Amino acid sequence: MTVVEKKQPTDRLQENLSQVQRLIERHRLVEDLVHRQEMEKHDLVENLVHKQNLVELQHKLSQLHPADVAHILEALPLEDRLLVWDLVKAEQDGEILLEVSDAVRETLIESMEQHELVAAAEQLDTDELADLAADLPRQVVYEVMGSLDEQERAQLQSALSYDEDRVGALMDFELVKIRADVSCEVVLRYLRRFDELPSHTDKIFVTDEEGVLKGVLPVRKLLVSDPDAQVQEVMATEVVTFHPEEEAADAALAFERYDLVTAPVIDDKGLLIGRLTVDEMVDVIREESESEVLNLAGLKEEEDLFAPVIDSVKNRWAWLAINLCTAFVASRVIGAFEGSIQKIVALAALMPIVAGIGGNSGNQTITMIVRALAMGQLQPGQAARLWRKELGVSAMNGLVWGSVLGLLAWALYGNLALGLVMVAATTLNLMLAATMGVYIPLTMEKFGKDPAVGSSVMITACTDSGGFFIFLGLATLLLL
Amino acid sequence: MTVVEKKQPTDRLQENLSQVQRLIERHRLVEDLVHRQEMEKHDLVENLVHKQNLVELQHKLSQLHPADVAHILEALPLEDRLLVWDLVKAEQDGEILLEVSDAVRETLIESMEQHELVAAAEQLDTDELADLAADLPRQVVYEVMGSLDEQERAQLQSALSYDEDRVGALMDFELVKIRADVSCEVVLRYLRRFDELPSHTDKIFVTDEEGVLKGVLPVRKLLVSDPDAQVQEVMATEVVTFHPEEEAADAALAFERYDLVTAPVIDDKGLLIGRLTVDEMVDVIREESESEVLNLAGLKEEEDLFAPVIDSVKNRWAWLAINLCTAFVASRVIGAFEGSIQKIVALAALMPIVAGIGGNSGNQTITMIVRALAMGQLQPGQAARLWRKELGVSAMNGLVWGSVLGLLAWALYGNLALGLVMVAATTLNLMLAATMGVYIPLTMEKFGKDPAVGSSVMITACTDSGGFFIFLGLATLLLL
Repeated sequence: MTVVEKKQPTDRLQENLSQVQRLIERHRLVEDLVHRQEMEKHDLVENLVHKQNLVELQHKLSQLHPADVAHILEALPLEDRLLVWDLVKAEQDGEILLEVSDAVRETLIESMEQHELVAAAEQLDTDELADLAADLPRQVVYEVMGSLDEQERAQLQSALSYDEDRVGALMDFELVKIRADVSCEVVLRYLRRFDELPSHTDKIFVTDEEGVLKGVLPVRKLLVSDPDAQVQEVMATEVVTFHPEEEAADAALAFERYDLVTAPVIDDKGLLIGRLTVDEMVDVIREESESEVLNLAGLKEEEDLFAPVIDSVKNRWAWLAINLCTAFVASRVIGAFEGSIQKIVALAALMPIVAGIGGNSGNQTITMIVRALAMGQLQPGQAARLWRKELGVSAMNGLVWGSVLGLLAWALYGNLALGLVMVAATTLNLMLAATMGVYIPLTMEKFGKDPAVGSSVMITACTDSGGFFIFLGLATLLLL
Repeated sequence: MTVVEKKQPTDRLQENLSQVQRLIERHRLVEDLVHRQEMEKHDLVENLVHKQNLVELQHKLSQLHPADVAHILEALPLEDRLLVWDLVKAEQDGEILLEVSDAVRETLIESMEQHELVAAAEQLDTDELADLAADLPRQVVYEVMGSLDEQERAQLQSALSYDEDRVGALMDFELVKIRADVSCEVVLRYLRRFDELPSHTDKIFVTDEEGVLKGVLPVRKLLVSDPDAQVQEVMATEVVTFHPEEEAADAALAFERYDLVTAPVIDDKGLLIGRLTVDEMVDVIREESESEVLNLAGLKEEEDLFAPVIDSVKNRWAWLAINLCTAFVASRVIGAFEGSIQKIVALAALMPIVAGIGGNSGNQTITMIVRALAMGQLQPGQAARLWRKELGVSAMNGLVWGSVLGLLAWALYGNLALGLVMVAATTLNLMLAATMGVYIPLTMEKFGKDPAVGSSVMITACTDSGGFFIFLGLATLLLL
């Protein structure tokens, strides 16, 4: 009997990656040697060594889980990645393409011949095929569609008809259905006829003859039930169900909240049309949080770490351009006060502090509000209440930190009035940040925009221009 | 037979919240009336109305899933939250405390009597109790410990002995164990003796007489197997296992990668000591991404939306203080060039643009690198390669956007040399941002620090001070 492998998955993953990298390095070294010595093709010994590394690499790869191969592909620079991709067993192609990130998938698909792509796509279930379809050349999709039976084609078309972020695009069709008026014994016998139950099967769906969902029979209940008990006595009728048009992010929150493993998807008439599984929901949660982080950092989408420079530039230019525009506006605000700066040059050194602390504080507020909106915890009626609270926080922070800054300014420039302007400007800018931090995301939400996208840039724009205006304006009024 | 509920979980959640809010409002209204009219206590009619709202509210709450009650508690301001909390059925207290966020949990625990806390804690499994223990008064923990049997106490102590972010702190002890040398028929009979299988049971653990893990029997395999087949013929021996000292975030990545529902936790000797379930891993993923977002925004931890002002100030002051320090350093850099600004006041208006675009670009780079490090996709040997790539990206962006800025500066101030300084300074600051963006997180990782914490602040500090220095320095050298 084999002993259970004791190595932890993360260590093993890193080890696999290192092994693959070592084999690639050795292979490149030999190749280099061959190249430099302009070795004759029939120099068998060298040639064998040359091939041996690749054979070893191929053997290594064939033992790995598709998700592990995907991880290795993502961690390799382009030329190594394509070398490894060539060695991967063709039967795993489809699975691996599903696992890699969008950016890396593109590089892999570009390197494949049409017939290879068709072969890879044909290994997949219809719901998986639907996930991949957008990235495949149109010709490939048509060819694969031709090989599907009628039911599969209908499933594929249904899955393709939903937006990426809807439940309908994520559901699969591996449904084990039973009737309510049979005994558990019969169910157990029925299940035994399967070669294999669908992955993640934690419940069996109970439908009537029309296919309308009547309840679910959790496997953990089935296993402890009296074999003679009828399904309808044992099944659960309070079921969390989803509609295909529902947002995937909402479904993921429900999976989190109710600790679900699978859940039925039903249409308006209650007909069971698919199921959601927790592994898809985990991906949704991960992607959602990633896009939030990427967006906060001003990246359009996830980037292949080894993308060519030009691809990276494209991914980043949009936010840089927006940043440039807002910075230019802020610069013009300063420009309007050039006369004042000429007279008190200390203003130039102090103004970025006021703007900076406003941006920081505003981002704190806006992050709180965006999160509360995403979790459905913020009712529109509470805006005013929250605003008052945030004003309180910012007034307090403004007076404390503004005073610290004011004292520093006074000490540095020996000008008490300048210090007082600093206190006032910091406090006012923080209060502006609090106001914008509450109302920017709420307004975006009201107009049906995603408040997570771009609100951080907007608030920084407000607190920069606003901070310069308040500080320089006050200074001009009071000090000149 | 009850019909399956068709409403989608998210709608239902919002509806519940609104209903509760309406009932609270009505209750407050009546209370207000009573107060204003100084109604006599024996005015029975009013009093009945008064109570009726609370009864209705209590009835509503008793029908909800603990997770839904938790959601409502989080969305309510403090005084309403405590009103609702008082009405919640005592049997649900423990579950709900587990579901709410740390900040909200604190407010709830503060409002409870010691004996209520003991009662709530006693409802929980040992692993759940361990999660809560840190937030409970010490006296309560001791009292609850006294009521546990020896095995439970050992489990609790074991769970408490691990750091929060380790597998050991997240595992539970609901293990269904069988021997390898029995038939599937026997296993099915054995399972039927349970009242209920543990939640998420998708596999049964196969151990020898010492308790060493020998394999797992997936339920989906058990259900399709010949009842006469021996467990050892059917079970899987290649099992993903975890060690209690492993990091929870790594375990979550493995759950994601291999689409796991449950997995065994074994000690150094291979002894089965617990199991991980996907619902805990989903929470880990969510928390991890949240702390990343919070940290990017400069918040120490998640905040109760309706926290008192002073609590919010405490949560935010640390990052504001750090921001203030870095801003002050940048301000002193400017201060060193006050003479130059006095001569060319346009420098004051243009310098924030150079600093701002550097910060934006640096944050793009650092986010990429931090993510790649978290996913284990970045090998230390590749730093130089990545740096060259990022330098390329930033040089390109610098020349393009720097030129735009240079042209604008030339047009605005009619000074070609100033425009050229702008181009050079922008490009150099972006290249500084790229360098820091690659090496700050790699250095932090090298010294065992979490690169996600604070790297965004550090890079902004570099690009601000660096940007001012480069721009004003070049201007002083070339224009004066």
